[in-house]
Amino acid sequence: MRATLMYKAGDVRVVEVPDPEIEAPTDVVIRVTHACVCGSDLHPYHDLEDTPEGRRMGHEAIGVVEQIGADVERLAIGDTVIVPFAWSDNTCVHCRDGITTSCVHGGFFDGAPSATQAEKLRVPQADGTAVVVPAGTDESLFPSLLTLSDVYLTGHHAAVRGGVEAGKTVAVIGDGAVGLSAVLAAAQLGATTIILMGRHEARTDLGREFGATHVVAERGEEGIAAVLEITDGLGVHVVLEAVGHMPAYEQSYGIVRPGGTISRVGVPQYEDAPVGFASLFGKNVTLTGGPAAVRAYLEAALPTVLDGTIDPGRVFDRELPLGEIAEAYRLMDAREALKVLIRP
Amino acid sequence: MRATLMYKAGDVRVVEVPDPEIEAPTDVVIRVTHACVCGSDLHPYHDLEDTPEGRRMGHEAIGVVEQIGADVERLAIGDTVIVPFAWSDNTCVHCRDGITTSCVHGGFFDGAPSATQAEKLRVPQADGTAVVVPAGTDESLFPSLLTLSDVYLTGHHAAVRGGVEAGKTVAVIGDGAVGLSAVLAAAQLGATTIILMGRHEARTDLGREFGATHVVAERGEEGIAAVLEITDGLGVHVVLEAVGHMPAYEQSYGIVRPGGTISRVGVPQYEDAPVGFASLFGKNVTLTGGPAAVRAYLEAALPTVLDGTIDPGRVFDRELPLGEIAEAYRLMDAREALKVLIRP
Repeated sequence: MRATLMYKAGDVRVVEVPDPEIEAPTDVVIRVTHACVCGSDLHPYHDLEDTPEGRRMGHEAIGVVEQIGADVERLAIGDTVIVPFAWSDNTCVHCRDGITTSCVHGGFFDGAPSATQAEKLRVPQADGTAVVVPAGTDESLFPSLLTLSDVYLTGHHAAVRGGVEAGKTVAVIGDGAVGLSAVLAAAQLGATTIILMGRHEARTDLGREFGATHVVAERGEEGIAAVLEITDGLGVHVVLEAVGHMPAYEQSYGIVRPGGTISRVGVPQYEDAPVGFASLFGKNVTLTGGPAAVRAYLEAALPTVLDGTIDPGRVFDRELPLGEIAEAYRLMDAREALKVLIRP
Repeated sequence: MRATLMYKAGDVRVVEVPDPEIEAPTDVVIRVTHACVCGSDLHPYHDLEDTPEGRRMGHEAIGVVEQIGADVERLAIGDTVIVPFAWSDNTCVHCRDGITTSCVHGGFFDGAPSATQAEKLRVPQADGTAVVVPAGTDESLFPSLLTLSDVYLTGHHAAVRGGVEAGKTVAVIGDGAVGLSAVLAAAQLGATTIILMGRHEARTDLGREFGATHVVAERGEEGIAAVLEITDGLGVHVVLEAVGHMPAYEQSYGIVRPGGTISRVGVPQYEDAPVGFASLFGKNVTLTGGPAAVRAYLEAALPTVLDGTIDPGRVFDRELPLGEIAEAYRLMDAREALKVLIRP
């Protein structure tokens, strides 16, 4: 089959690889019908060292079950399934706590031997991981369903962990697909004021349609001042940080109000950061977030896509065949595309 | 009057200073009847630079109202009052949010022109700040009442911000007075497993009486291993970090379970710390805490001391007159005393 491999920063190729096979009795193998490129794929696209064997790419997928392990009970050949970016048994203590990305039998497709930007995918812990899409679901809904694999529910995770609820004032840092998803999720959770910090007008326009009440294009000290101006000098209750770089972190503690929360879902591209009296401690600020527990939210979110309550698939503004995925990376890196859907 | 001043690290003296006076119509002046030395006073005791004019010390007090500003309505001359370590108007937006240490009219006695290790104290925003002790309260309860000025309610703040509740597994790092208070508070909030990390046996014995179910004397990697052993390899739901030094922070993220919370009330002696994928983010760990909103908890805690439900004053193991306060600092710094009550 064909799969996407990255060999070094900027070097993405579609190559022939062996088909994945059932390795454990809890696996299924799916034929991937919908995949996409994630903002986090751009991190290795910027800095991956020479990797002669290539790194398998992609962690978001919808597909049709083609092979099934002996112990799989909940899935059948022919089922169309959404596959979250991390697999999980959905029964362990951490899954029961709602932190499926820390499943004791879990793992991440990102960098795994079988990843999603490919014609086929091996799904470990398939009973726990994959969620069936009802037969007969309209094709037009599939972009939105695909966002339940990662991007929309990552925005939702930020909002949930951040404690967004009715009446809360929220700022979202980042106008990428995760940031826009966080806007939509915050609106669904009842936030009344949603300030989107971003400067790409086509994106912030979509953010307004998703529920942003204000857009702040300024960054750094100017951006902080603008948010304080909007919030009567108080700052926001919740910051949803959907970038992952240090300036976004610094902006976060500049705009959060005393007792407020910074919820991060942008994968941090730093390990150390300010957390002392001058940044978090003095204002009793809470810092939370992490890899989204997509699986924990998926079954509740599915009907809201199917009935049209939310349409998070609008973050896809381009679609390309698998063979042109290198162009998808280029478009997203150049910010010429917000998010590219891939049809293997 | 006599007041305590620190002139440099290790140099604490009781000197004659002018009596405090009403400066704003919202002030009262109290005669301090009970004060004490805080673990956080030991930070300048270790590292205060030469300060020729001296730094006023002390931020915990009970006293009797002697003078009263024209706008004070809730207090009368002769009232015995508990004064939290920070003053606050108790009406502003942050006070209403329960973050009284961020009051827009607030401030900290620590380092202020009038501080509590003295015969008299000026209390700003007195209506909002001071809480009256019922007349006729038995003298034996005053050590416990004094802990409502800071230490017990700082432990309580850690537990509340950390989300301690029935069924949660909690670790407390630090066997100082704040750590032991955090143990007592966690037990009051219903934690079933409370692991106290400390190595001073007299203190950890008191911790057991306060509700600790386990004591771990080891530190660093050994301490982390011991906590994981107690928790079936999972780690704890909540870490209450009552030290403020980097090794305690590192220990915290080593023992917290996925999705768990680290709540800090030890004033951090660092600004930058690990918060990236390897420490907090990867496990969806929440970091919270800050200066305790003592005032927000004080009225609810008062009856629990008066009726004997809790006896947090047991953290005081010595009592000295104001004139001997330098010895109190020495005793606490040498860990010969847990916490010293001062009678001006």
